[in-house]
Amino acid sequence: MKPIVEIARQVGISEEHLEQYGKYKAKLAAELWDDIKDRPDGKLILVTAMNPNPAGAGKTLTTIGLSQSLNLIGKKTVAALREPSLGPCMGIKGGATGSGKAQILPADEINLHFTGDIHAITSAHNLLAAMVDNHIHHGNALRINTKKIVWKRAMDMNDRALRNIVVGLGDGNGMTREDGFMITTASEIMAILCLSENIDDLRERLNQIIVGYDQDDQPVRANDIQAVEAMCVLLKDAIKPNLVQTIEGTPVLIHGGPFANIAHGCSSVVATKTALKLADYVVTEAGFGADLGAEKFFNIKCRKAGLTPSAAVVVISVRALKFNGGVKVADLQAEDLQAVKRGFENVKRHIENIRKFGVPAVVAVNHFITDAQAEIDTVFELCRELGVEASLSSVWEHGGAGGVDLAEKVARAAEQSSEFHFLYNEEQSIQTKVETIVREIYRGSDVVYAPAALKTLRKVEEMGLSHLPVCMAKTPYSFTDRADVLGAPTNFTISVSEIRLSAGAGFIVVLTGSLMTMPGLPKKPAAESLYVDSKGQINGLS
Amino acid sequence: MKPIVEIARQVGISEEHLEQYGKYKAKLAAELWDDIKDRPDGKLILVTAMNPNPAGAGKTLTTIGLSQSLNLIGKKTVAALREPSLGPCMGIKGGATGSGKAQILPADEINLHFTGDIHAITSAHNLLAAMVDNHIHHGNALRINTKKIVWKRAMDMNDRALRNIVVGLGDGNGMTREDGFMITTASEIMAILCLSENIDDLRERLNQIIVGYDQDDQPVRANDIQAVEAMCVLLKDAIKPNLVQTIEGTPVLIHGGPFANIAHGCSSVVATKTALKLADYVVTEAGFGADLGAEKFFNIKCRKAGLTPSAAVVVISVRALKFNGGVKVADLQAEDLQAVKRGFENVKRHIENIRKFGVPAVVAVNHFITDAQAEIDTVFELCRELGVEASLSSVWEHGGAGGVDLAEKVARAAEQSSEFHFLYNEEQSIQTKVETIVREIYRGSDVVYAPAALKTLRKVEEMGLSHLPVCMAKTPYSFTDRADVLGAPTNFTISVSEIRLSAGAGFIVVLTGSLMTMPGLPKKPAAESLYVDSKGQINGLS
Repeated sequence: MKPIVEIARQVGISEEHLEQYGKYKAKLAAELWDDIKDRPDGKLILVTAMNPNPAGAGKTLTTIGLSQSLNLIGKKTVAALREPSLGPCMGIKGGATGSGKAQILPADEINLHFTGDIHAITSAHNLLAAMVDNHIHHGNALRINTKKIVWKRAMDMNDRALRNIVVGLGDGNGMTREDGFMITTASEIMAILCLSENIDDLRERLNQIIVGYDQDDQPVRANDIQAVEAMCVLLKDAIKPNLVQTIEGTPVLIHGGPFANIAHGCSSVVATKTALKLADYVVTEAGFGADLGAEKFFNIKCRKAGLTPSAAVVVISVRALKFNGGVKVADLQAEDLQAVKRGFENVKRHIENIRKFGVPAVVAVNHFITDAQAEIDTVFELCRELGVEASLSSVWEHGGAGGVDLAEKVARAAEQSSEFHFLYNEEQSIQTKVETIVREIYRGSDVVYAPAALKTLRKVEEMGLSHLPVCMAKTPYSFTDRADVLGAPTNFTISVSEIRLSAGAGFIVVLTGSLMTMPGLPKKPAAESLYVDSKGQINGLS
Repeated sequence: MKPIVEIARQVGISEEHLEQYGKYKAKLAAELWDDIKDRPDGKLILVTAMNPNPAGAGKTLTTIGLSQSLNLIGKKTVAALREPSLGPCMGIKGGATGSGKAQILPADEINLHFTGDIHAITSAHNLLAAMVDNHIHHGNALRINTKKIVWKRAMDMNDRALRNIVVGLGDGNGMTREDGFMITTASEIMAILCLSENIDDLRERLNQIIVGYDQDDQPVRANDIQAVEAMCVLLKDAIKPNLVQTIEGTPVLIHGGPFANIAHGCSSVVATKTALKLADYVVTEAGFGADLGAEKFFNIKCRKAGLTPSAAVVVISVRALKFNGGVKVADLQAEDLQAVKRGFENVKRHIENIRKFGVPAVVAVNHFITDAQAEIDTVFELCRELGVEASLSSVWEHGGAGGVDLAEKVARAAEQSSEFHFLYNEEQSIQTKVETIVREIYRGSDVVYAPAALKTLRKVEEMGLSHLPVCMAKTPYSFTDRADVLGAPTNFTISVSEIRLSAGAGFIVVLTGSLMTMPGLPKKPAAESLYVDSKGQINGLS
């Protein structure tokens, strides 16, 4: 690792604008923006993927590798990524900083507490929750309907026991009521932090958070609870992007990590905008597959932040294609050209979808040593038929050198003049916006709404907030709302079970099927395999 | 503020042993200890106080000021203090970094997330809780009795609604059972971190934590849950002391902050031992008044860490004496020599108590501008009668210069040869240890045990752990277990309501009366008065 001051210097950031956390991590001071805001923007590259599955495509790996490759071919590049959440690290996932020769350092620290952003969000979230219950305890001057409190509590942990709880039991312990915890990445504050331009914008958005409804069914907001200034105090450093580096010394801004279901699943606007001023190319990623991640990146993040993406990379792997084509995990090693072809139907649809936004797409085939040459050839043949550029990426094995061809193709795609546009107009009705996504992206034929969802939808319209973009919450594994329907299904119905208003983040969450905002730990949690030696070295995390 | 590297240099710490968090905060690397361990120890000064009351004595202020004053008179001094907890900062208390010309910087950051230690403890605590419930959910191979889980959850927040809760409601959400949250400073992990010498010692202690009992009523430990290594991973940086500075550039190690009721109320052993190698004098404080704080500092911390205190400072104020002498807060301004005399009975007993440990005491009268000269004269006269050195301290107004006389008296006291000894022998029975404290320190005549307390006491004996020191949990406001009995009462009975075993921390918590481990917010929380401006400056915190 190079000292972080040296990484900063590479992109023209002087030491005075760095707030160092050890030698290899730093926050960028708010004042940096004033220095760089008049510079021209670099080109924004989105890395997305086919629908995720247990075989693994390698989206984060490719994002990191591509940023290294672009630097290798002389394009000054910064990567902008999401912060790993501690809960999943301790659960099933392990770290989220890439691997092999395409990883971000210091990996262990990034995967653990990093610079404390997620802890700060947890604190701000729970302060608001405590102040709501405290307000009720001390007389409830706002006449909050205690059956209609929508602000839950948060923890950065996979802890199923906290999903549904009853709080306030016992004399003097506040109002007894149903409540629950969500994982911090699902907190609206995480989404807000990622969409805010600066601390004043953050304050405005926090003010709008709806914590519940009063006896007249009018919204009660964080502003009414007088919690927002203290929340800003808690978040004043969390809103600053974090600078780290890849294993090849490419600067990386890691900042924010909202869920890609209940939220929009992209790293922060502050980090993206800063990166665009620092580099010729900014490589960023969105959560899950392109049906959720890219759609929300384009329709929510780019819209709200005024960003124009120049190209999108769709990461696939032969293994993931075969799984999507019906092969079981245990049988993925065996060559199966037909399964590759069946799985490619899924990729084809994602490519078509991205083109609907006017964004040129490039396919990155993330190479695994178990891939048969005939399978790889088949993938390239299918891409040719589709008229999409494809490149075999071996960044895990070779680092940036393993993605030079990909980088060249991405750069060429990005040099075309952008025809980026949104898929829907914000001013359309909520139902029209949902239908547009379902028909154009998922290719379903119909949308049905549960009565409770319709009721909330009318409520949102009454509140004059139907102009907000919609944030779809759907299983990431399928274009449908059923995880087991792979490939490229058509003629299905999407069932909207619930609608939630994230008035602070500024979107309407449309839930299809059931949505888990607090994961559980598996039978053998990843936590059981961690180990720290007496020198403070961690094993088993990344 | 001076750069923290410069503060470190003052006490012979080179930059390679600093892990900087911004320019003004740093953690000390574990490797520093190897470099300094063979140096002679400095003298250890404990700052304690009369029983606390709303009038305020100024213990933290005096600790900070005295460290500055000792440096002024040529004694190389480092202060070792506790970390502020976020919950109380947002509640009633505001910050905990001193004020006026006796404060620690950067105050706002220390009072907020600081270097993330408390967040790390919260994470480790809740990981263990989640893994316990997860173990039960996945078959309960350890046969944990779900009615006898003693490991609750933790949050650094004042949130009364979380005191008593029911978790695990709903299908697939684990075992439905009663549970509750404590504030993180009350977590046994906080006590453990503060008593551990290094990460290997930390691991040993974490292994011993009892999370509950199985169907045969045998203890189930954190070790059985296989959570300890991951907890060590989460705590690997939290165990390193944090270096900051006073407003006059005196080095301060701020590290750990366990409650002084359910735990021992002192900053970390690691920080104290490190400080003793770096300076001629180390000034540290203990929680609450001397009946709780000093007793536990001597009997628990000094015993476990092999420390020998050279002197103790008892902080009092004329205002606090008058309140203790029966004057209401609204009337504290008026001169009242009789009330001063009545209140001094409280101080007298604390002085006598400290002498029982063989430690010389000095009284610091923390000056308020409202103090009448006649009141101050009375205090000094009473001290003379008691044969104890006293000094008027005006460190709030004058910084170190306001405590030069105090520093000289403290230094003289500390230069006497120490006759420090413990008040009881660990090998005595639990009841004998409790009785010794009640008779010798509190001056009660009797101890009665609730049946449940006696049952646990027998259980601890059966487990072969009765040799652990006792950690008294009592109201800080009185020598008795009733908060409203001020002065120096005698002939009272202490009622032990409950006994809890902190097997990891290594003490037996003896609860008298009811003990709140999760505070609530007041009607107007301090959080409502906080404000951060667009330059990131915080107002209203310290």
